[in-house]
Amino acid sequence: MLNPCDPAFLQALEAQLPPGVLRAPEDRYLTELRGRYRGQAGAVACPGSVEEVASILKAAQAARVGVVPYAGGTGLVAGQVMPEGPLPLVLSVERLNRIRSVEPLGNVLVAEAGCILTEVQAAAEGAERLFPMSLGSEGSARIGGLLGTNAGGTGVLRYGTMRELALGLEVVLADGRVIHGLKRLRKNNMGYDLRHLMIGSEGTLGVITAAALRLFPRPARTGAALIVVPSPEAALRLLALAQARLGEGVSGFELIGGQGLHFLAEALPQIRQPFAEPPEWLVLVDLGLVAALDPAAELEGLFEAAVEADLASDGVIAGSEAQRAAFWHLREAIPEANRKIGAVASHDVSLPLAALPAFIAEAGAALADLGDLRVNCFGHVGDGNLHYNIFPAPGRKRAEYDGLRDRVTQTVHDLVHGFGGSVSAEHGVGRLKTGDLERYVDPVAVSAMRSIKAALDPAGILNPGAVLKG
Amino acid sequence: MLNPCDPAFLQALEAQLPPGVLRAPEDRYLTELRGRYRGQAGAVACPGSVEEVASILKAAQAARVGVVPYAGGTGLVAGQVMPEGPLPLVLSVERLNRIRSVEPLGNVLVAEAGCILTEVQAAAEGAERLFPMSLGSEGSARIGGLLGTNAGGTGVLRYGTMRELALGLEVVLADGRVIHGLKRLRKNNMGYDLRHLMIGSEGTLGVITAAALRLFPRPARTGAALIVVPSPEAALRLLALAQARLGEGVSGFELIGGQGLHFLAEALPQIRQPFAEPPEWLVLVDLGLVAALDPAAELEGLFEAAVEADLASDGVIAGSEAQRAAFWHLREAIPEANRKIGAVASHDVSLPLAALPAFIAEAGAALADLGDLRVNCFGHVGDGNLHYNIFPAPGRKRAEYDGLRDRVTQTVHDLVHGFGGSVSAEHGVGRLKTGDLERYVDPVAVSAMRSIKAALDPAGILNPGAVLKG
Repeated sequence: MLNPCDPAFLQALEAQLPPGVLRAPEDRYLTELRGRYRGQAGAVACPGSVEEVASILKAAQAARVGVVPYAGGTGLVAGQVMPEGPLPLVLSVERLNRIRSVEPLGNVLVAEAGCILTEVQAAAEGAERLFPMSLGSEGSARIGGLLGTNAGGTGVLRYGTMRELALGLEVVLADGRVIHGLKRLRKNNMGYDLRHLMIGSEGTLGVITAAALRLFPRPARTGAALIVVPSPEAALRLLALAQARLGEGVSGFELIGGQGLHFLAEALPQIRQPFAEPPEWLVLVDLGLVAALDPAAELEGLFEAAVEADLASDGVIAGSEAQRAAFWHLREAIPEANRKIGAVASHDVSLPLAALPAFIAEAGAALADLGDLRVNCFGHVGDGNLHYNIFPAPGRKRAEYDGLRDRVTQTVHDLVHGFGGSVSAEHGVGRLKTGDLERYVDPVAVSAMRSIKAALDPAGILNPGAVLKG
Repeated sequence: MLNPCDPAFLQALEAQLPPGVLRAPEDRYLTELRGRYRGQAGAVACPGSVEEVASILKAAQAARVGVVPYAGGTGLVAGQVMPEGPLPLVLSVERLNRIRSVEPLGNVLVAEAGCILTEVQAAAEGAERLFPMSLGSEGSARIGGLLGTNAGGTGVLRYGTMRELALGLEVVLADGRVIHGLKRLRKNNMGYDLRHLMIGSEGTLGVITAAALRLFPRPARTGAALIVVPSPEAALRLLALAQARLGEGVSGFELIGGQGLHFLAEALPQIRQPFAEPPEWLVLVDLGLVAALDPAAELEGLFEAAVEADLASDGVIAGSEAQRAAFWHLREAIPEANRKIGAVASHDVSLPLAALPAFIAEAGAALADLGDLRVNCFGHVGDGNLHYNIFPAPGRKRAEYDGLRDRVTQTVHDLVHGFGGSVSAEHGVGRLKTGDLERYVDPVAVSAMRSIKAALDPAGILNPGAVLKG
């Protein structure tokens, strides 16, 4: 059993740290974006070095005080707020915010956990390289949280998730010992891969303090198109067609459902829509090509081939970088419109690509049986990742569906599971989905996860109650 | 302490298995390619299903009998042969050899651990897809061993190691419980990533019985060139130039040292060499491009730009697919020539790209101080991976260097470590490099590895003595 982060603990800890590291918990550390959880904390620690992180964890383990790692606070599954249990210490990595090196010849950049994603993108750009991680919250999300949750976003199709972008990690274990693992290597087969164990463990196995991140050549020319497709299956066939023609040049492939366009028109009417009447299904194709290829010509060729194969009926090709940005802005604004409309339930699911059309059909039918609901289905369809969000019927209030919410989510998740999918594609487990983990993940795997947690954090101080139920 | 795999154990186990699963150990299970280790076994088990693997491990754990997983037998670090300790059971996955499914729309293929790499490549090709793992032993290496050692090879630059090619795994744990983890998902953030823990653990944490593997579009057009570069640094700058021009279209980038060409001329004179006088440094650039780009024209443009930038002095561009294959054959024949010449010591190392030229210079100087030696330095330089092999001076015998071998290896490995590299880039630890793991890997990381091993295999039956010293 853990002890609370009480004044006696804080006094003893304060004596070991420079002034100003321990602070009273401001409200921002205790709230989360969707407003469903309210955290608690005895204090917030803002260490300025890996050694200070080590001192904090060593003291916390000795005193059996829970520690909640905190990065940008943009997580959507309450991994960063602990509403229940003995009062924890929040450990914010915000002061670990140096970019330690940028090495263009080696295509690597070393960033501390508190660096904001846009800062890392800018540092890479300054060296004529690309750091390809990109997502809606990139202006506030920090590297430590992106690694802790194995963030995804819009560049995964071509470049992978955070997991695939990290070559090495510096990590502090629960007992305060430091793994100095900032390798800058593509290949390293010296023992078990602790890096991948830490990435996606949401601060429950260790605190990541810095990472060696992969950089890429910047595509010489970019382009984008919005293409109206007759169905989700057509979208997948269009993806295969695009990849057969352009390989890795297909940098992004996003599905936008008609409901999302209606919500945009309603909630964010200032966003200009490309089609007078929102189509049922729209795809955003994004290209990053070598200098010898003309994106507009390639998109035109792709569109013609798609029409020929009955995979597209209408489309618009970006005529400028500004128009490409506008296409992406349209896509990125959907979550904001969703928040304004107010969802009954949100789901971040992934499916085997081939199962995606059947899932969309069956889930729609099952939800129609449950009640009067609207579905906004959109997302990174090239990765098999859908944000499958459920809304009240027009004119009805969210609160009217309070009794239905759990059944809606279970219906969606059961279907995803039945198709071999995952009920957390890119957001993680946090505290929101610990029940889902027990319900849907292979029980032998969950048992192995518990063994690993017990081996690396025997006192259970790291992010108590996240990922695995206490 | 483990018990031997004795007749009593085998009799009890035989009663639980179909006839023919347990066999007397043929010699091929007890030898390894380099002839340095001689294994031992009470019997060889050849299970035909995951359930049989589970029964075998359950019985072995109950009886505390060591189990040595065996796939293609092509490993170079003695992970598959156990020369010492209580007699183990060898567990061969050769009968788990079905390709369970090929899904071109989802770009995934499910193969059992006993499938041979060339069979998997062929199955992908049959579906107009590419399974990009490729290495010298592909005609006998099996999927289970490739995953267990996180194999690399020639396609890593573009497609990653086995780790990056596996979406999901079916694994039997030490106690016989099965993780049914054959997910076909690009994104799945439901808990700790056991997949990456198993991959590269060389059969010490579980036995992989099947994997969901990623497929890719086949590049429409391929090409290759051999380019003479003035130095390793020029090779790296040529790589950056090639990637800036062609992005992921650069599928392979191999360095060939002049010594390797001299060895080829001596040991395999039938292989035609492209240059009358072997150059000091040669690079093999391999392209896989989209239909709209002409590989020969792109290689010509690259070569001209390289000459302009003093990065190349001579070169030859493959005029046909046969010539491209001949270039690769030249590269792939170097290990065979090495075996005929007879190495004093072989090293599979990786370095941060930017440190590679300094390593090559310093290692050459340090070895010249040690004795009269020849260095054959070649490898997957785009991945920072060198095969850095040391040979006797002309006219001298290997045996004359027996007293020097350990100092040679330690000199090379110490330098690699000093430059932030790894002393096993792609071959793994096996039993050959357990001392290196203790010497060079962060001690806190090694301690965490031991905790994980104890948590997942408390009796220590899985591949005893591999990766971590007993």
